[in-house]
Amino acid sequence: MAGAFNLENEVFKSFLACGAAVVIKMQCMGPITSFQRAKHKAWTNPEDARARGKEPKYSEDVERVRRCHLNDLENIPAFLALGAMYVATNPSPTAAIWHFRVFLVSRILHTFFYLKGKQPGRAICYIVGALVNVSMAIHTLCTVFS
Amino acid sequence: MAGAFNLENEVFKSFLACGAAVVIKMQCMGPITSFQRAKHKAWTNPEDARARGKEPKYSEDVERVRRCHLNDLENIPAFLALGAMYVATNPSPTAAIWHFRVFLVSRILHTFFYLKGKQPGRAICYIVGALVNVSMAIHTLCTVFS
Amino acid sequence: MAGAFNLENEVFKSFLACGAAVVIKMQCMGPITSFQRAKHKAWTNPEDARARGKEPKYSEDVERVRRCHLNDLENIPAFLALGAMYVATNPSPTAAIWHFRVFLVSRILHTFFYLKGKQPGRAICYIVGALVNVSMAIHTLCTVFS
Repeated sequence: MAGAFNLENEVFKSFLACGAAVVIKMQCMGPITSFQRAKHKAWTNPEDARARGKEPKYSEDVERVRRCHLNDLENIPAFLALGAMYVATNPSPTAAIWHFRVFLVSRILHTFFYLKGKQPGRAICYIVGALVNVSMAIHTLCTVFS
Repeated sequence: MAGAFNLENEVFKSFLACGAAVVIKMQCMGPITSFQRAKHKAWTNPEDARARGKEPKYSEDVERVRRCHLNDLENIPAFLALGAMYVATNPSPTAAIWHFRVFLVSRILHTFFYLKGKQPGRAICYIVGALVNVSMAIHTLCTVFS
Repeated sequence: MAGAFNLENEVFKSFLACGAAVVIKMQCMGPITSFQRAKHKAWTNPEDARARGKEPKYSEDVERVRRCHLNDLENIPAFLALGAMYVATNPSPTAAIWHFRVFLVSRILHTFFYLKGKQPGRAICYIVGALVNVSMAIHTLCTVFS
């Protein structure tokens, strides 16, 4: 039972790959926000606005990126913690690898649909990612209490 | 000292149980937000509002759920990371298991009190959860530097 | 390859120290927010404002702390997850320890510069922290796919 967290465990390697990739996606939201702020000349902090000779301004396009980023914060750190817990329960490799891949793809598509304002794509991707998280949490609880 | 993260370690099992349960609680905030948006017909994204023949609208009841969710994001991912670090330091089992249980109960009650607008229950639960986090962080630092 | 997560591994010990310290820094944002709310008599929740005989009020100084805290949430949980993944890939100890130290210092200075409204210090610290995260993510991906 020892040693789920080593690089000879295919489940752990898959988790590392999907986890690192989804965090890189999340980190991209910062530069996308900065790009939208520059494009719409809309900064929230007075020191940022005034350095460009502007007053603080609200932009719906900036807020959209920020809502998308906040949705990431609601789901991706939970995935990273639950994924590691799930790896520790020695799940079926096929099931585990597909949990990780489906989550990664759902969050990339969620960002795409959110920034484009497309429904129901955004809602479906959110639900799929959340269900992966809940599935891993239930599997972990069942293993611990069995 | 090797192998804190295996299922024969009672401390790790308790962490898995409380950690998975508190993430399930956090994931419930998404559906609760959706429910409040539908109840008050208050959507922020134009594509969501217009699909129901409405304009984007602000609702204090929706914002309350979102503030509660944000408070979760400020405390629960920190707990998940600190809890795993704390498990790695081989703490006293009794102390560790009570840290995890108290955190779980404090966050469930925090949500209940926040959504009902009850003080000082909400503040007390927030402080208890934050103190659990700080206690685990200090224990980890003391172990590393001893 | 087994056993990266034990206290005889200097890389893991450094991660525990920097990770616990940066979470303590993040947890301080809650009390700083409360202090600014009390100083400016600006509470968002009606039950908090009315308990002091006030109406809910907006304060730019409170919002500044909250934006700084949100920036922490966008970067610190990602660091905690990526740092643990990176430790699992058995990186060069010197490189790893400096990744962790640079991140910790960059986030402490980021908070200082954000609360003082100082640019370009804030932007530089944000970028340094984000680059540490991306560097650890790329290292993890390279190890997994090599």
